[in-house]
Amino acid sequence: MIYCDYAATTPMSDIALHVYQEVAKQHFGNASSLHDAGGKANDILENARKVIAKLLNSEAKEIVFTSGGTEANILAVDTLLRANRSKRSKHIITTMVEHSSLYYYMKKLAQQTDIEVTFLSVNTSGQISLSELEKSIQPNTCFASIQHVNGETGFIQPIKQIGELLHKYHITFHSDMVQSFGKIAVEQLLPYVDCATISSHKVFGPKGIGAIYFSKNLSLAPHPVATNHEHGLRPGTVNVPSIAAFAAAALETVNNITNNHTHLLFLQKLFMQKLKSEGIPLQPITSENQCPSIIGCISEHVYGDYLMLEYNRHGIAISTGSACSIGQSQVPKAIQPLINTQEEGKRFVRFSFSHQTTKNEIEKIIATSTIIFKRLKEERQ
Amino acid sequence: MIYCDYAATTPMSDIALHVYQEVAKQHFGNASSLHDAGGKANDILENARKVIAKLLNSEAKEIVFTSGGTEANILAVDTLLRANRSKRSKHIITTMVEHSSLYYYMKKLAQQTDIEVTFLSVNTSGQISLSELEKSIQPNTCFASIQHVNGETGFIQPIKQIGELLHKYHITFHSDMVQSFGKIAVEQLLPYVDCATISSHKVFGPKGIGAIYFSKNLSLAPHPVATNHEHGLRPGTVNVPSIAAFAAAALETVNNITNNHTHLLFLQKLFMQKLKSEGIPLQPITSENQCPSIIGCISEHVYGDYLMLEYNRHGIAISTGSACSIGQSQVPKAIQPLINTQEEGKRFVRFSFSHQTTKNEIEKIIATSTIIFKRLKEERQ
Repeated sequence: MIYCDYAATTPMSDIALHVYQEVAKQHFGNASSLHDAGGKANDILENARKVIAKLLNSEAKEIVFTSGGTEANILAVDTLLRANRSKRSKHIITTMVEHSSLYYYMKKLAQQTDIEVTFLSVNTSGQISLSELEKSIQPNTCFASIQHVNGETGFIQPIKQIGELLHKYHITFHSDMVQSFGKIAVEQLLPYVDCATISSHKVFGPKGIGAIYFSKNLSLAPHPVATNHEHGLRPGTVNVPSIAAFAAAALETVNNITNNHTHLLFLQKLFMQKLKSEGIPLQPITSENQCPSIIGCISEHVYGDYLMLEYNRHGIAISTGSACSIGQSQVPKAIQPLINTQEEGKRFVRFSFSHQTTKNEIEKIIATSTIIFKRLKEERQ
Repeated sequence: MIYCDYAATTPMSDIALHVYQEVAKQHFGNASSLHDAGGKANDILENARKVIAKLLNSEAKEIVFTSGGTEANILAVDTLLRANRSKRSKHIITTMVEHSSLYYYMKKLAQQTDIEVTFLSVNTSGQISLSELEKSIQPNTCFASIQHVNGETGFIQPIKQIGELLHKYHITFHSDMVQSFGKIAVEQLLPYVDCATISSHKVFGPKGIGAIYFSKNLSLAPHPVATNHEHGLRPGTVNVPSIAAFAAAALETVNNITNNHTHLLFLQKLFMQKLKSEGIPLQPITSENQCPSIIGCISEHVYGDYLMLEYNRHGIAISTGSACSIGQSQVPKAIQPLINTQEEGKRFVRFSFSHQTTKNEIEKIIATSTIIFKRLKEERQ
């Protein structure tokens, strides 16, 4: 199988698997236990926390581990709301293109509580308007939650400029960096955000682990379940083997970020050139500010669902958008500004590559695409 | 090290580690992806769900996987509350001796929302009074949440009788079975509960995985984050490697439950006999209805914290109560009915054994106890 769905999930790296196994077998103690078995697990936990903190240009006390990106996003929102519990009315700013974990949670907050939520739209480059953002700020705005890289298009938000604007108004800024961590040097952007969320299984670490960066400048209230885990912000026995494996995977991924980026730019260029030169009716969705690992395409004639199954039949795994909302037959939200009709949106497919993707794989995908679209053309005639 | 803290956490079994590694390496797809990589992961997920369902005498559609016992408890409470969202005022019945994840969450609900919570006390055998339970039922009672086995004392609640009483009044019954699953045949009690929570790392599975049984007779509303994961009740990429390893560990543990129980009864008897015959000043806390894996003791003179560190210095890992609330220097809630003074409560320590504990280890613990208490006696003189 040629796997082109690295934006959905990645395989665990060898080092991550090795670390997981060692910790799960040798240092299985409960990190909160005060005997040596617990102490050793806690040492490993705090070492992993330092690794992740350093990769984010932050301090260990600013990192909270969670059970994944989705929990990280929800816990970040809930914690930032709790930090503003004295405010009578509450307002949040977010965008129309957030990951479903945030988008639907914000929708429910807007519908079922007295919290007001502004959903900013994006332009054809996937970016929000800074002037619209500024206009949406209210005296009771608690925070803004704006993603870094969109998982469907790879489009990048101007985090620095957004952060500078929000901080001028003393608004806390959370950014979902799940898709960018390990692909873009997010540590350089950390001074501009107060809170960021990342996930392990997008960077060749285990599933079921994520992390939140909460700036030490934030005044946070403890989790409703009184706990001594994770600075009091997340209860439950800490998953030390997965956290240690996450740190190992993240370290390896981030250390290779420059080489990987060069490789991904090469693959992106090759893929798009070949699509054109071979006359394959897939129109790539591009922008100047785009993560090269994600190439969304609009097919000329065929629905994405059908196309995905065709590629799958030929041993190539691609996607029609976020795996987290698949099966809902919706047009990905990030595609909306780029299409004229909903029918066009349904023709969307996503290829997502990684450093494990080879030139040979790209060539095979192109050759297979030629076969698939030739047959589809014949069927239509 | 002689590990006697299996109630806090267990090492991963060989089969669980093997399964984890295989799935994480070979079948890493996102279970929600529709290509074969996702399909294979989904097959493994649904197979694991069937295994856990069968061990609980339930159906696959009644099982929801979570990131652990704590999340399972909180998600169970939230989901059962959502199922009663049409009720204007809401009332929950629970006990004073629930695991901290439930106890503190219920406290916050009682303090910070308009939900009323009744906290039932327990007798010296750790059991609630059925007549008090009956008296606490109100017309607006949504559900009762009563644990099966207490993690500090090993005392067992009469789940069958509690369930029969609650069902007479059509009250939904949730039971935290984290400490009993794999040690007691909980599947025989499932007809008496509507919802139960279990955890993987207490049965030699990986950390970071738990499950909720929701009876198919319950009418549940979806999670606030619209999701197609876990029957719409829990969002986030599903941690398939850990779930598969959990199923493997649980199957092995439950299949050996009779042998393990016999072994634990032998260890319990041996330990208590030796404590007495060697004149060790540790008074075991016992009841007729007790899980033999947990032996709480009140020391005659020394604080539990100090004693735990002394045993640790001699290479024996014991506990002063739930690892989830350690560091708070509180007397374990389940100990309160058994003590006359708070000072007595601070002299509590817990030994917890498993099938991996040997006769030889018990003898070494006794020998070490003799040394520790002899020295402590000399120090006092």
